[in-house]
Amino acid sequence: MQAEIIAIGTELLLGQTIDTNSAWIGERLAELGVTLRRKTVVADIPDDVRAALNSVLPETRWVLITGGLGPTKDDLTKSVLNEYFGGTLAFHPDVYAHIEAMFARMGRVPGPLNRGQAELPNVCEPLVNSKGTAPGMMFHRDGVRFVSMPGVPYEMKHLMEVHVLPRMRAESDAHIAHRFFMVQGIPESELAARIGDWESTLSKGLSLAYLPSPGIVKLRLTARTESADEAERLLEPATEGLRSVLGSDIFSEDWKTIEEVVGERLAAAGQTVATAESCTGGSIAALLTRVPGSSRYMLGGIVAYANEIKVRTLGVNEADLLMHGAVSESVVRAMARGARKRFGADWGVASSGVAGPDGGSAEKPVGTVWLAVSGPGIEWAARFQMGDHRERTVRKSVLEVLNRLRGFLPEEPVKY
Amino acid sequence: MQAEIIAIGTELLLGQTIDTNSAWIGERLAELGVTLRRKTVVADIPDDVRAALNSVLPETRWVLITGGLGPTKDDLTKSVLNEYFGGTLAFHPDVYAHIEAMFARMGRVPGPLNRGQAELPNVCEPLVNSKGTAPGMMFHRDGVRFVSMPGVPYEMKHLMEVHVLPRMRAESDAHIAHRFFMVQGIPESELAARIGDWESTLSKGLSLAYLPSPGIVKLRLTARTESADEAERLLEPATEGLRSVLGSDIFSEDWKTIEEVVGERLAAAGQTVATAESCTGGSIAALLTRVPGSSRYMLGGIVAYANEIKVRTLGVNEADLLMHGAVSESVVRAMARGARKRFGADWGVASSGVAGPDGGSAEKPVGTVWLAVSGPGIEWAARFQMGDHRERTVRKSVLEVLNRLRGFLPEEPVKY
Repeated sequence: MQAEIIAIGTELLLGQTIDTNSAWIGERLAELGVTLRRKTVVADIPDDVRAALNSVLPETRWVLITGGLGPTKDDLTKSVLNEYFGGTLAFHPDVYAHIEAMFARMGRVPGPLNRGQAELPNVCEPLVNSKGTAPGMMFHRDGVRFVSMPGVPYEMKHLMEVHVLPRMRAESDAHIAHRFFMVQGIPESELAARIGDWESTLSKGLSLAYLPSPGIVKLRLTARTESADEAERLLEPATEGLRSVLGSDIFSEDWKTIEEVVGERLAAAGQTVATAESCTGGSIAALLTRVPGSSRYMLGGIVAYANEIKVRTLGVNEADLLMHGAVSESVVRAMARGARKRFGADWGVASSGVAGPDGGSAEKPVGTVWLAVSGPGIEWAARFQMGDHRERTVRKSVLEVLNRLRGFLPEEPVKY
Repeated sequence: MQAEIIAIGTELLLGQTIDTNSAWIGERLAELGVTLRRKTVVADIPDDVRAALNSVLPETRWVLITGGLGPTKDDLTKSVLNEYFGGTLAFHPDVYAHIEAMFARMGRVPGPLNRGQAELPNVCEPLVNSKGTAPGMMFHRDGVRFVSMPGVPYEMKHLMEVHVLPRMRAESDAHIAHRFFMVQGIPESELAARIGDWESTLSKGLSLAYLPSPGIVKLRLTARTESADEAERLLEPATEGLRSVLGSDIFSEDWKTIEEVVGERLAAAGQTVATAESCTGGSIAALLTRVPGSSRYMLGGIVAYANEIKVRTLGVNEADLLMHGAVSESVVRAMARGARKRFGADWGVASSGVAGPDGGSAEKPVGTVWLAVSGPGIEWAARFQMGDHRERTVRKSVLEVLNRLRGFLPEEPVKY
């Protein structure tokens, strides 16, 4: 089943609003196995909306239209759709009663513009919008459904969840199931090479997608079959196969982030962590504390940007600093140990590197980062080359050191 | 002058990637007075890319194509464009030398797929991409420029800034000039009320746009006139007017961020800063150190997530903690002083709050945040209610406390 989005809004084209609606719709449709074939963003101009309606692809069954509703937009979408489907506007007392009730909740009374919102094309099925004053509208033509929804994200989501997704689900003939595998620190091309053999043995009905973001690749394994049972029957051995190739390089089999997995493992083990950061400047601590409830296991951290702070607060040896420089194995190891000791934590993680753009040398070019983990009976340190993009270097370093920490933590029983 | 975007990427339709490229392009084009008339997002399917090329509007002069380049996408966009413009692929030794150099920097050697990236249609003008391995391409037909760029945001931005925007600027017939005013911590509706009188007196030819993001509103004042002189003549008094209404609530009159302005002022004054963070968990330090060269003024920080760390490392009074709790005026003031003292910095900034979702109480509900600044002869602290969204609470707190610090720092002479 194929769908398209038409997003209406000059503000989307001016870059004033980032269209997160479409990403949300795209994810929901992918989960249902509905193919989102195209998305068109047009300005608040009737001709442009008409042009988009006229160029709907022949195989499309659902056209999801967002925006262009509401009194300040002159109900542009409504009037274009009314004309397009050859209808006339009719006043709906029940819709108006709902608008009045919405206003009453705010202690206000609707104005004449809001009265107009209760006038709907007689050729549409009104979709009750309990989150706002602009109702949704559904039009039918030649087996194609055109759904008009407000652009306000929570109103759109509400209409999709109540009126649209259930109908799509009922009509969909495909059984779709997914498995997700999250991997850190392995470039997409290297990962593709590592799992190439496994991928080439995937049964018909299974497909694999690479969803990369800086430092992380999410693998999505999708089964598209005739029954839910068959989907499971395909996914099970494929999942086992991928696990045996990638092993503990898979840090999560759902949408959990590294910091969430680290947090779960620390909490389960009753252990604590502290950070000592130079080039990452507080970002390791910030990521760890992004997780609600992280105060159970995150004691604190030190951002030791200046060298004398490394000596004074983390107990780094001054001679080491002089001999090897701040970006060195001995210093980063001492920082991890120092964080552990100073905070009385079970684990210490540390970073020291040249984030750039300045400060590089022939021996330690921009992007050189030393990372370390210190814990019970364990000490690890390694040098990385993270490239010449300051923010990415920080991001990749944070993910790398937390993923290393994850590898040292006792694994919880894997749930199947 | 009219432009369109064609964004290629199944991942954009599946909702796994939010297309921030288009918003960035939209903003840049708006600044140049170029009308972005439409944006089409299509999957990695040659037919769909062709369909999008075929439906370019007659008035369009620039078609900006993002994505579908790179070895893992089989250079889909390249082959479709090559065929569309009737070209043949030719190997470019200079492009390949650049790819080799990019790999060499990472200590790696290009594979055969990367060699293919140096093959370009003989009917295009290659656009050097010094940020990545996939070159941009520019095609001409009947006065329309088709520009193909990688989907990776910083590569796309680089190609736009170096190759595309300067040409658009040179060709544009409108005289467009802008002034930007950045404001922090004032909600859009409140700001609109404060500057309403000023806005109603704006001359014809001037327009104002609100560009809000969490915690920050950018105001863009645009003059669209027949000559550059006239634009200045309109902008000058309007700018003066806005300055007299908003005063030092304007933290920047260009695209500088708060952390950049703070950094400049600290560097100019030869002063230093240190942080003591609880609810912001390292994000204040991370934002300060995001600025290249911040090691000149940022000494370091302490993330004191656990209460005993606040006592042990920051010298917070244990009795205060017991009596008032960690989220209190006396504790946050002590943290700011403690950071200053411990790091020997001129300025200390501190945060302590309930980021949520748990930990709230009737007296201190989720979103309650105390912030403090301590400096030479100055101490400031205040309580805020940042709402019930954990990440936004952190973000808004970081911006708020740094903006307060900015207010205390000696202002550099304003450049006109």
